[in-house]
Amino acid sequence: MRGATTASPCPLYHDAVELIGRRWTGAIVAVLLETGPLRFRQIAQAVPDLSDRLLAERMRELETRGLVTRTELEVGVEYALTEMGRDLEAAVTELRAWARRWLAR
Amino acid sequence: MRGATTASPCPLYHDAVELIGRRWTGAIVAVLLETGPLRFRQIAQAVPDLSDRLLAERMRELETRGLVTRTELEVGVEYALTEMGRDLEAAVTELRAWARRWLAR
Repeated sequence: MRGATTASPCPLYHDAVELIGRRWTGAIVAVLLETGPLRFRQIAQAVPDLSDRLLAERMRELETRGLVTRTELEVGVEYALTEMGRDLEAAVTELRAWARRWLAR
Repeated sequence: MRGATTASPCPLYHDAVELIGRRWTGAIVAVLLETGPLRFRQIAQAVPDLSDRLLAERMRELETRGLVTRTELEVGVEYALTEMGRDLEAAVTELRAWARRWLAR
């Protein structure tokens, strides 16, 4: 019988989707992957329609989860992906390719 | 100067992250990818902690966006991924692999 034994999704995968899928987080990770380390202002410019308050919240969460490092500079703050964050490149690349195949007009 | 030209994330990719990353949607897609077509009840069992109301909303959204088809059966309703939905397999596989590498204790 089809679907008689239904596999639950891997809880680690579910956690990953919830983390990266949070509003704006996927976009922030993509910008850091493409451009390299960035200051807060530069991320804010690259991801428009995102308030500073929400961006700060997202960056704090990415730092807490170990995906980015935060370095205080003489002026401002710089964020960079950790090895864990950079390792998302394959997933981001696949999702971007899917989006281009299916979401373009 | 590092980061002087900051690429904005592809809007199609952003749309894809927002779509798949919506709470529970990534898990629902993963279950359908792994198991094949499923009835509403079976999806509800496979993705615990998700209310019927919210699951119905997510399935409606996936149907509207063209990722699943909805077929009325004599008893109940069956959902199946479309070609567009199945084509997410590579992205889901990469994200699952990342989750296993980095989110396991």
